[in-house]
Amino acid sequence: MKRVLIIGIGAGDPDHLTLQAVKAIAAADVFFVLGKGSGETSGEVPGEGSAHDLVRLRRNVIGAHAREPYRVVEARDPERDRTGDAYSEAVEDWRARRADVYERLILDELGQGQTGAILVWGDPSLYDSTLAVVDEVLARGSARFDHTVIPGVSSVSALAARHRVSLTRVARPLQVTTGRRLARAIGAGTGPAGGSDEFGDVVVMLDAHCAFTDLPDGDDVDIYWGAYLGTPDEILISGRVRDVAERIRETRAQARARKGWIMDTYLLRRAPEAGERPPSGTGVS
Amino acid sequence: MKRVLIIGIGAGDPDHLTLQAVKAIAAADVFFVLGKGSGETSGEVPGEGSAHDLVRLRRNVIGAHAREPYRVVEARDPERDRTGDAYSEAVEDWRARRADVYERLILDELGQGQTGAILVWGDPSLYDSTLAVVDEVLARGSARFDHTVIPGVSSVSALAARHRVSLTRVARPLQVTTGRRLARAIGAGTGPAGGSDEFGDVVVMLDAHCAFTDLPDGDDVDIYWGAYLGTPDEILISGRVRDVAERIRETRAQARARKGWIMDTYLLRRAPEAGERPPSGTGVS
Repeated sequence: MKRVLIIGIGAGDPDHLTLQAVKAIAAADVFFVLGKGSGETSGEVPGEGSAHDLVRLRRNVIGAHAREPYRVVEARDPERDRTGDAYSEAVEDWRARRADVYERLILDELGQGQTGAILVWGDPSLYDSTLAVVDEVLARGSARFDHTVIPGVSSVSALAARHRVSLTRVARPLQVTTGRRLARAIGAGTGPAGGSDEFGDVVVMLDAHCAFTDLPDGDDVDIYWGAYLGTPDEILISGRVRDVAERIRETRAQARARKGWIMDTYLLRRAPEAGERPPSGTGVS
Repeated sequence: MKRVLIIGIGAGDPDHLTLQAVKAIAAADVFFVLGKGSGETSGEVPGEGSAHDLVRLRRNVIGAHAREPYRVVEARDPERDRTGDAYSEAVEDWRARRADVYERLILDELGQGQTGAILVWGDPSLYDSTLAVVDEVLARGSARFDHTVIPGVSSVSALAARHRVSLTRVARPLQVTTGRRLARAIGAGTGPAGGSDEFGDVVVMLDAHCAFTDLPDGDDVDIYWGAYLGTPDEILISGRVRDVAERIRETRAQARARKGWIMDTYLLRRAPEAGERPPSGTGVS
């Protein structure tokens, strides 16, 4: 049987790798790397091969932990249609074409009894398409293989650690959402999480347009923002939204222009009222 | 200056430790361990020292990675009042008494220039009180120290990895909440996440009472449940809620009775309708 390992490698710091990930990398015969084969960037997310820094980081991870003999097989990541309004459909189409690529790689480049590895930034379960793509390849039935998922340190955990804050407060929920959805919620006047204020603590990912700058109640909301988390280029800014929103927007634009790509995320939290506890918390029951 | 490291050690598998955590453990002079000093259990959460298995697991982690000379200083974890209705107040009170303990440990047991370590299951930012307690110690001003947080693999990431599912679907949000809050939402008839169905994917933690068994729309909802994740005792059950809810409840009760404690979590997800994609997803923008 062929075996495919989907390995979370953490948010950017090579030391975010778990011992389990190190062992999985050492066990792999073939690494599948999707790239653009050029220096172009693909936007907000570290698309496979979209940014030289990330390609280098991943290559270093393989170089540090893979065991000879191993092969690295690169393939061209399909382009995604960013022109239309039909966001979900475009993602579905892109996913199907990515499945074509992985299907071919597993059929042609992975021998019986061999182990292939796909390295995923952060944790594979959070806003990453690899699991869905692999499910689609399996559903097609032509490439047959076992697969195992190795969890990783998510950029959300890395963000919280660097700001030394808890994501959750006593007995309160946490919402993880996208910039697009936050912007829509703000537009509809439904508050940061698109619902009632029940949803007090919100982690926002994939926000290319700094939706937080439009928060109507920025006076009462704290933001904990981080970019290039875990890397030498890491930037952290926190404070009341009204005080730091513009600084974050400018810092982000400059960093993106300088490096050609950006990967960032943030936590929004209604500031505690007078007498309330600091915003870390436990939900121990 | 004194230094305190708050180290996420992953969800139960010793190989969930990151290289960063391994280095942090190796750098520590003193490990602060809060325990009960007895075999009694504290309920649903692996309270410090509440369960022999977890004490042993943590001791193994220290033994495997700490560098001589080092000390392990155990202190008695304050009891928490579980009798009253005032949940948040009881937690606040318990937190203040925990701060008393850590304050004394840092004042008395940690020398100038030394590094103390506190090991936290999972990731320190998710439903864990350590960061809040340390903030409280700092706010009091008597014990002065620098602190650093080392992120870990959360039980949520471990759950998703073992079930090989993504927590998020294309451009959809994720809600992380507690069993208590889910039960209240079901009682109020507001659906799994306490809001509209916008909040489609829900991770539930700290659910001692199997709130999912009361889901009125269990016909349409899938559950991915896991207990003792990453340990040799791991149990995984998934399926439509109406089909597996009772089996989970029974399995959970038996396991808890047998081991004296349980640590579990689950993902609820409205099942995809005909023609919809499988439930993994990407939010790439």
